[in-house]
This record gives sequence, structure tokens and C-alpha cells, in this order.
Amino acid sequence: SRLMEDIHHTCQWGTGERWGEHTGMSRLALSDADKAARDWFVSTTEALGCKVTIDAMGNTFAVRPGLRNDKPPTFVGSHLDTQPTGGRYDGILGVIAGVEMLRVLADNWTETEYPVGVVNWTNEEGARFPKSMVSSGVWAGDIAVETAHNLREVHPGTATMAEELKRIGYLGETPASHKAIPMAGHFELHIEQGPLLEMSNKKIGVVTGVQAYKWFTINVKGRDTHTGTTDLKSRADALLTASKMILHSHRLATANCALASTGILHLKPGSTNTVPGSVSFSLDIRSPKDETVAKMTQLINRDFPKIAAGQDVLDSNLGCTPGLPLSVEIVEDFSSPATNFHPDCITSVRQSAHAILGPESHNLVIEMTSGAGHDSVYASKRCPTSMIFVPCREGVSHNPREFCKEEDCAMGAQVLLASVVRFDRM
Amino acid sequence: SRLMEDIHHTCQWGTGERWGEHTGMSRLALSDADKAARDWFVSTTEALGCKVTIDAMGNTFAVRPGLRNDKPPTFVGSHLDTQPTGGRYDGILGVIAGVEMLRVLADNWTETEYPVGVVNWTNEEGARFPKSMVSSGVWAGDIAVETAHNLREVHPGTATMAEELKRIGYLGETPASHKAIPMAGHFELHIEQGPLLEMSNKKIGVVTGVQAYKWFTINVKGRDTHTGTTDLKSRADALLTASKMILHSHRLATANCALASTGILHLKPGSTNTVPGSVSFSLDIRSPKDETVAKMTQLINRDFPKIAAGQDVLDSNLGCTPGLPLSVEIVEDFSSPATNFHPDCITSVRQSAHAILGPESHNLVIEMTSGAGHDSVYASKRCPTSMIFVPCREGVSHNPREFCKEEDCAMGAQVLLASVVRFDRM
Ligand SMILES: NC(=O)NCCC(=O)O
Ligand SMILES: NC(=O)NCCC(=O)O
Repeated sequence: SRLMEDIHHTCQWGTGERWGEHTGMSRLALSDADKAARDWFVSTTEALGCKVTIDAMGNTFAVRPGLRNDKPPTFVGSHLDTQPTGGRYDGILGVIAGVEMLRVLADNWTETEYPVGVVNWTNEEGARFPKSMVSSGVWAGDIAVETAHNLREVHPGTATMAEELKRIGYLGETPASHKAIPMAGHFELHIEQGPLLEMSNKKIGVVTGVQAYKWFTINVKGRDTHTGTTDLKSRADALLTASKMILHSHRLATANCALASTGILHLKPGSTNTVPGSVSFSLDIRSPKDETVAKMTQLINRDFPKIAAGQDVLDSNLGCTPGLPLSVEIVEDFSSPATNFHPDCITSVRQSAHAILGPESHNLVIEMTSGAGHDSVYASKRCPTSMIFVPCREGVSHNPREFCKEEDCAMGAQVLLASVVRFDRM
Repeated sequence: SRLMEDIHHTCQWGTGERWGEHTGMSRLALSDADKAARDWFVSTTEALGCKVTIDAMGNTFAVRPGLRNDKPPTFVGSHLDTQPTGGRYDGILGVIAGVEMLRVLADNWTETEYPVGVVNWTNEEGARFPKSMVSSGVWAGDIAVETAHNLREVHPGTATMAEELKRIGYLGETPASHKAIPMAGHFELHIEQGPLLEMSNKKIGVVTGVQAYKWFTINVKGRDTHTGTTDLKSRADALLTASKMILHSHRLATANCALASTGILHLKPGSTNTVPGSVSFSLDIRSPKDETVAKMTQLINRDFPKIAAGQDVLDSNLGCTPGLPLSVEIVEDFSSPATNFHPDCITSVRQSAHAILGPESHNLVIEMTSGAGHDSVYASKRCPTSMIFVPCREGVSHNPREFCKEEDCAMGAQVLLASVVRFDRM
């Protein structure tokens, strides 16, 4: 109940669409609400005896000393930012369960062998600044800090990450780097965000890896014209063309057992009686296999220019009058290859889950991979890493209806604590 | 050249995207730029001896007395608002040619039989407040003034027409009604906005009518979910569904010799890794025949709910994995039936055009209908009306590249003046 109190207490900052007894969340990275949640994280972990370090990406590391301090800490990490219409569990559960770990260790006067810590990573969602896991990516050395600092928000598209970090007082002086802040290991508790645990009546997922994904921006350029005076064949309709591309990305995904999704679309000029001359949209491609994401990328690069040019790609004209040719630009914004977590961390999680769930645990624990990206992806490039999944209702996430039962949150937090302690001893 | 000077002088208010030596225009209805252009119109026509009346829709009527004033004036009318990425001719040419008519009459000490006037109609474009010709519609008694006053702007969707009329000082006290401000006739000079005159080397189009059109808002409701953890069949993807509908509206248009266009699309929540649960888009359907628009309406009402439900309408699933059912709401925002102009006005325009274009006029004048709506549509419901079209380059309009040659503007203005004088005598 203390864990749930912390979750609901901190969820006063950034309440979103109301759903049931609790509201959904809308706490975009580096917003005022995010600052309030961060301030709570800093003061709470300091009160629990931690030393807090903020790096140049606003990543916030709270470290509790161990018996010996000549090796780096084992971290629990996740994120406090949410989607624009998100819930109270995605990311938040992981960070608050880290704080709960600190509370349990303090209550029980427990000293770990080496230091342990909790990290709140910045802009994991990629919802405001359109690169997911960007700040753990900088820490890992995979994304340049300048690239991250210059990222512009998607709505309304003016502020950069650096400006917003500065504005809310979280542009730290410590370099955002695994060299400045090394880790012995990284554990992350997260809701599954998919339906597998719930559907199979499992309680804990031992996460062995994460699927591959890429993000693109697709810019289609046609010509603004009058809707009433321009016959269909004299149009270069950027929205009709974008609609064909979106549809085509789904048939390619179906044919290749991949996922394709468009979550953002902006058009210009935006008037009922002007055929839009310009459309930009996001494209998110995923698959457990790197080869499949590579193949999808290749097919999109092959087919989208043909669709723009008006060529008949897999019947994509579909009985529509062909119009004038358009142009398309395909920009890759982000790429995260398939990730395999570390056997030592996976073992820590597996053994902890079985120990805590008791005699029936073989029916309640499964090994699985993640469909979503997590900061553990980048952490795993620089230190042994694994994750713990708990079920969420109907597998729904990135939605205010997202929900995880108290008992499942608690079970996950216990497995997290045990995994860290086990790994620390190991 | 005086006409062109007036056009370019007033186009300092609301300059848009730059194109060639002159900039395109972005003068949304009731913006500060629109206010500046309106103020010029009022002071200029007053200086030319007109009495100016502003009605409750901001329609601005400048009237020059005739020899006798016991009958209503013959009006020249058009609009000073533009598309977000519009040009310097659509609407503007018509109003400024009206001012030029007043200048010519004044210069030549000419008195007309009855009064003549120039009217600047508010928000003809329907680009900011999404009903085209809305204020001539109120004047004609076809649209309730409350409905018009409560119209909300499309971006960002906060201000209403009444608020903006008040803010810029154009909420007049005279009722917006043909009863309060009767007209003997209404003439409008306009660029064709299509390619027919240019392609056939004609100089003047005698406009006999306007095609029918309807505007709809389509609201698609699905479910926000995570792009990485939600398999294709568990999605209710509002953007994929909207893409299918947009595509389908084009195949229906192709099959029925109609036009279908989507110029506005908003989605929510707008994040790369959230499948959008909500999409709203505009749909503009046109045809010269009312029956065709009615048939398109019926087909859309039949097929869009099927597409939302995931049924296979004319192969619209196209090899995409079927997902969960969605819902759709189809709202008719605006309807303008096919319009036939008045024989007396058509005759005035035809005779004036032939008189001015001289011996070769039979090669230079054609009769035609308009693909675009104009305030003359509503004017024609309450008084004899016709229009004069002049060619525009490549038929392009609603685009900063919109262009009409000086000689064509001048020719159109001469035919306009002659038509009014002829009608006044008639
Ligand atoms: N866990 C989560 O929702 N992460 C966002 C990154 C992604 O798009 O997978
Ligand atoms: N002339 C013109 O562009 N009018 C706007 C109304 C329409 O959509 O046809």
C-alpha cells in the first residue's frame, strides 16, 4: 500500500483524461508536471540517504552507499514521463518501485555489498521529443548529446530538449555518459503493455530481450489546389498519397509479420477546400528480428517513391483516378536493434521470481521478450541488464485506461528488490 | 494599372508564402490583416462618396446613390479573405474591381439610374470558420445568424465568428438580411480557378451557374494503444481506418464522376508510439448535379460505417490484417445545391463581354459553370445574379502561385462595370 500511495501521490502532477477512480496521466517529458515529479524524486531519495546526481540529459541518479563502495552501484531504472494520453504505470511503476526498494532497505537497516541506486531517465517515451529512450541512449554513448539537446518537441514544435532541461532546472553538470556514471547492473520493473501475461494467467515475465524498431518521418510534397475546380487527374494530393502509403505500410507489415504504425500526421495548409500540398507523418516499424525491420525499411524505400510517382504498387491506386506525380522524402529518425539481456541478470530475476512466488511458481512465471522499447535497451549496452514484467489489464497501454492491479504491482516490486539484492551478492 | 495598384497596395495586409515578384496571401477571415483590408475598403469607398453599412456578419456594403433612389442598388460583390496559403486574386480581384468601378463612375461624373454598390462578404472561403459563403448565406436567410456566430475556427479551434467580429470591430448593428439590405442584382468578377479558359484561349467566361457541393466532418473513434505491443488484429487504429475512408471516397468519386477531397485532418493523441484512437477529417463532395452529390452522400453513409466495422467494402482491407471494430460519425456541415444564375444578368454579362472584346469576341467568350462556390450562389437566391470569369495561370488557385495577368484583370473589370451599367439601365 505504501508503493501505491507513492504512485498515486506523485500522479497528482500531470493528470490526464479521467478513467475510473484514478485519472490517466499526461506528463510530457520536461513539462512543469515532470519537474514537480522530479523534485519529489530528488527530495524523497535524499531523505532516504541517497546522493543524487543529475546529468546533462536530466537523467537523475539516486545512489545509496553499500558496505563497500569501490565498485559501481546496481541500478533500478525507469522513467516518470508519460504519453499525452497515458496511464499511471508505464515507467512510473518502475521508478516508484525503486524508491520502495530504498524504503525497504532503510526500514530493515539492510546494507548491500555494493551501492544500489535508482535512476529516472528523461523522455523515455519519445512522445514529446521524438526519439524514444533518448537519454539512456546518450548515457550509453549511442546518441550524441548535441543531437539529443537539439531535438524539437512534436507539438507545437518549437522548444528543444536543451531549452526545456534548462527551463525546469534539470540540465545537470555531470556528463551524460556511462563513463561518468558507471553501473554494475540495471534492473527495470515494467507493466507488460501487451496481453500475454494476462491471457496465460501468469504473474511475472522474466524479460530476456526487446524487439527491434525504427522510426521514420515521411514528408510528402504535392501541390495546394482548389477542391472544387481541380479535377482528380490534375491533383497532386499529398493526403491521398499519404493515405495510400499508410495503408501500404500495413499490408507490408501483414505480409512480413512485422508491425507498422503511424501516430503523428501533420498536413498543410489545412483548409476544407484546399487539396493539401504537404503532409508529414511518422512511421514506426517493429519486429523481433533485425532482418525483418531491415526488409521492411527496404520495401518502404522501394515502394513509397513509386506510390508518390503514381505507379501502381500492389494495386495501391485501387480504382482512384491517377493524379499528377508527387515527391516523397523518407528520413530515419531512430533505430533500436533487437536486444538480448544478460544471463546473470536474467538468472537473478528468474530465481527471485520463483523464490517469491513459491511452490506454484512454475505456473506463474514465464520468459518473454518485450514489444516495447525501454531504457534497459541502452543500459544493456553498457552493463548487465534485465527486466521484470507484470500483467496489465487487457494488455492496454499508452491509454488512460492502462491499469495494473495492486497485488501485481506489489509482486513486481518484491521481485525487483530480490533481483537487485541477489545480483549485488553475485 | 490603378486596379493593380489597389490590389497590390491592399495585399500588404496578410502576406503569405512568397512566390515570384509578389507574395501569396494568408489573410484569414476576421484576422488583424482582414481588419486592415476592411478599414481600407470602408475609408476608400466613403471617400468615393459611398454610404457604408456593416451588418451583423461583418458584411460591408458601400452604396453610391443613383439618379433615383426608390429601388435597391445593383451590387458588385466578392470577398477580401483568403485561404491560409492563397493568392492575390481569388475574391480580392472582385472587390477591388468593384472599387475601380466606383472610381471610374466618379472620374466620369457618371450617374447611374439607381444606386450601385460594392459588398465585401465575410469568410467566403470557409477556411478559418468552416462554412464557405456563410455570411452571404445568412444575408439570404439560408443560414441562421446564431449558427454563423457560433462557428468555431478550425485552427486552433477556440474563437467563434461572433467573438472575432466583435474583436476587430465589425459586428455591425444592421441585421444580416436581404430584407434589411435588399439588392436589385449582384455581379461578381472572379478568376476561374480552373484551367478551362486558359486551355481554350478564351478571355471571358460568362458564368451561368455553380456546381453543387456538401461538406462533412467525419469522426472516427478507435482506441489508443501501444505501437510496439499491440498486434495488428488487436488494434482499433483510427488513422488506418481514416486512410481507407479517404481512399474510398476517391474511388467513389472516380466511379460517379464527382469530386471528393479531404483538406483537414486532426488526430489524437499524436505520438509516434501510440496508435491513434481518434481522427477527425473534412470531406468536400462536388458535382454539377445535385443527384450525384446525393448519391455520393448515400454511398458514404452506407460504406464508411462498414469500413469502420472492418467489413470488406470493395476490397478496402487490401491485404491489411483486419483489426477490432471502430465507430464513425458523419456530420453534414454545409450544403450548397447546384445554382442557376438569372437570364437578365447572364445577358448583361454576355452583351458587355461581346461589346468590349469587339469583332473577335465570338472566339474569346464562352459560357461556363463554376466549380467553386461564390457569394453569388446565395445572392442569386434573393436577386438576379451572374458572374464573370477571367483566366488564371494553369488553373491554379488556393495556392500562393495563383496568378492572373494584368490585362485579364483589366478586361474582367471592364466587363464588370459594363454589366452593372447595362443591368442598371435594364
Ligand atoms: N515502454 C514504452 O512504452 N516505451 C516507449 C518506447 C517505445 O516506443 O517502445
Ligand atoms: N471561390 C472560392 O474559392 N470559394 C470558396 C468556396 C468553395 O469551396 O468553393
